[in-house]
Amino acid sequence: MPPSADPFAGPDTPFALLDVAKVKRNIARLAAHTGELGVALRPHLKTAKSLEVAALAHGGEPGPITVSTLAEAEAFADGGYRDILYAVGIDPHKLPRVLALLRRGIKLSILLDSTTQACAVRDAAAAAGMPIPALIEIDCDGHRGGFPVDHPALVETGRILAESGSLAGVLAHAGESYFAPSLAGQREAAHHERDVAVAAAQLLRDNGLEVTTVSVGSTPTAHAATDLTGVTEVRAGNYVFFDLVMAGLGVCAVEDLALSIVVTVIGHRPDHGWILTDGGWMAMSRDRGTAQQAVDQGYGLVTDLAGTPIPGLLMTGASQEHGILSGRDGAVLPDLPIGTRLRILPNHACATAAQHRGYHVIDSGGATPAIQAFWERVSGW
Amino acid sequence: MPPSADPFAGPDTPFALLDVAKVKRNIARLAAHTGELGVALRPHLKTAKSLEVAALAHGGEPGPITVSTLAEAEAFADGGYRDILYAVGIDPHKLPRVLALLRRGIKLSILLDSTTQACAVRDAAAAAGMPIPALIEIDCDGHRGGFPVDHPALVETGRILAESGSLAGVLAHAGESYFAPSLAGQREAAHHERDVAVAAAQLLRDNGLEVTTVSVGSTPTAHAATDLTGVTEVRAGNYVFFDLVMAGLGVCAVEDLALSIVVTVIGHRPDHGWILTDGGWMAMSRDRGTAQQAVDQGYGLVTDLAGTPIPGLLMTGASQEHGILSGRDGAVLPDLPIGTRLRILPNHACATAAQHRGYHVIDSGGATPAIQAFWERVSGW
Repeated sequence: MPPSADPFAGPDTPFALLDVAKVKRNIARLAAHTGELGVALRPHLKTAKSLEVAALAHGGEPGPITVSTLAEAEAFADGGYRDILYAVGIDPHKLPRVLALLRRGIKLSILLDSTTQACAVRDAAAAAGMPIPALIEIDCDGHRGGFPVDHPALVETGRILAESGSLAGVLAHAGESYFAPSLAGQREAAHHERDVAVAAAQLLRDNGLEVTTVSVGSTPTAHAATDLTGVTEVRAGNYVFFDLVMAGLGVCAVEDLALSIVVTVIGHRPDHGWILTDGGWMAMSRDRGTAQQAVDQGYGLVTDLAGTPIPGLLMTGASQEHGILSGRDGAVLPDLPIGTRLRILPNHACATAAQHRGYHVIDSGGATPAIQAFWERVSGW
Repeated sequence: MPPSADPFAGPDTPFALLDVAKVKRNIARLAAHTGELGVALRPHLKTAKSLEVAALAHGGEPGPITVSTLAEAEAFADGGYRDILYAVGIDPHKLPRVLALLRRGIKLSILLDSTTQACAVRDAAAAAGMPIPALIEIDCDGHRGGFPVDHPALVETGRILAESGSLAGVLAHAGESYFAPSLAGQREAAHHERDVAVAAAQLLRDNGLEVTTVSVGSTPTAHAATDLTGVTEVRAGNYVFFDLVMAGLGVCAVEDLALSIVVTVIGHRPDHGWILTDGGWMAMSRDRGTAQQAVDQGYGLVTDLAGTPIPGLLMTGASQEHGILSGRDGAVLPDLPIGTRLRILPNHACATAAQHRGYHVIDSGGATPAIQAFWERVSGW
């Protein structure tokens, strides 16, 4: 069997395919929305981890970005980005790398939510003779870290940071919005996220502290917000690719999903109702984010190689390098001979993308659907 | 807060730590067992994906190995391995890379379970003027692919392969043994895996076909088997590291786990009973393999930096770069200040290791516990 003549079929499977037309459309949609709201957008590059995607998110200019690792901060700094927020609570062991970036002239901001971390930052800033811009994380929904806005140590943390000129502002993340299955619920989460962040900033200001940045965001709340008065910037990451979890929440449609994994049929088990592919959890990740939603999409929805969904066909099982496709609710399996290439739309783009070294890029809006480029990802920490 | 003086604490967290003393002990245990059984061991490198671990598995000699991707086959061939089994059903598009390895003199065997694949192999072998050694996959437990031993196309597939001299033998994998929670059940699975593989080989021989290789294996069945008469080789992969799933099955003890992920405490939420770390699913994977076992270990068990378990402390939640630790059944949380380094023992070593570029290596049996080396992993396909 010769390699398919299909222009997408170049690399051996499995591989990650990124449709740049959809990436651009998703980026334009949120940029228009935050533009209408009059608030800056600081894209979170934790999903794409790609310089090329970052450039699309800012119209080719190296604008403000958010990252999830110092490895990303370093790679994006090397790529020309000067305004970077590292949005994971700081481990004090990592301050030497933070200072190294600051000394290069990068405006790197960090995050924290304790007096212990604030003291470590103050002391490191004093020793280095330069401020280390820090945001205080504020908890708006009990999802993860952050100070509840009424926490007695919040103002004290701000004071400690201010001693070295390191207090930059506050940050909130409505992580629970990923579990709000309606626009109304997401909008309520967005405005609560705003209210909590603005209240924390006000509390610090009422105590004589200067607060420049009021940062909020998540992909659902960034899209749902209608009024961000008092907020200075919005963060979102997943929106550049979207995924089945976001489609399940109604934040996007399935046809907006820019990332898919190309796999090949390698076997059939009609006795089990299975089609086997060469894309297992190593290619898709173990993420089963839709399992908690109204419609469980298994490990992903199946489309043909051109991206058209195959009705009723799901990836229902995964071992390391094997995927199992089967019909939803006993749907009849289509005839997909060995060697057929398919795409799997992922539950969670951040997790699926992380299984790959980069993206093979197509442009479904262009003249030809051929793979145009390979965009590498930043990896590690 | 200065970097810890602890010798394990070198790299920024999270990172993968591999205890070579435990790797050696795990390897010696299975080698002794297969030696007693009088059967060859063909380690599956899909777990470690490391030349250094492969060398330990064979006492420094490049012996027979199993791989899960052609990228592994190519990397191990470059590292001196000459006898490699690629144990995922072949996608015919990949035959050019298989032939390229065969032309280098590598004894690369492939796997298949259909007349379609057998015809593709026969035709490619005829065009290349050389056999492409192929094993026929036999299903012993309905876990994944393979012919049931009574499938009418099994002998036909053997005949098609034999036309180009490509029939090498049969292979079975008792994947369901990962769900057999007792030694008796694992032993039964091992002997059934053997019986099915041997019966398939006999059926092919009864039809005048030559069968050299009868390959069986999984980590549980490789350890549980007491009689492998008729089998020529055993495959196992996970055993070099082991993990909480294997400990839950009783195949190993928790103290045998060679791989852990070092993380740092970055916050506390006493109101939620949480300790937050900088190791999320990006470091651990989304694998929740113990969720189906009698004892659900969450995302992993927590130990101190020296590897001593902290009773009752589990990793119970994960976002991309945040881990949540909490007490099992309301256990009181230990005092673990910000900056404390801990290790997390993973559910599934294959999946957790895959999140990292390589292993920082220690030897708990040596004179010093310092990190001695960094061993890179093979990645991609």
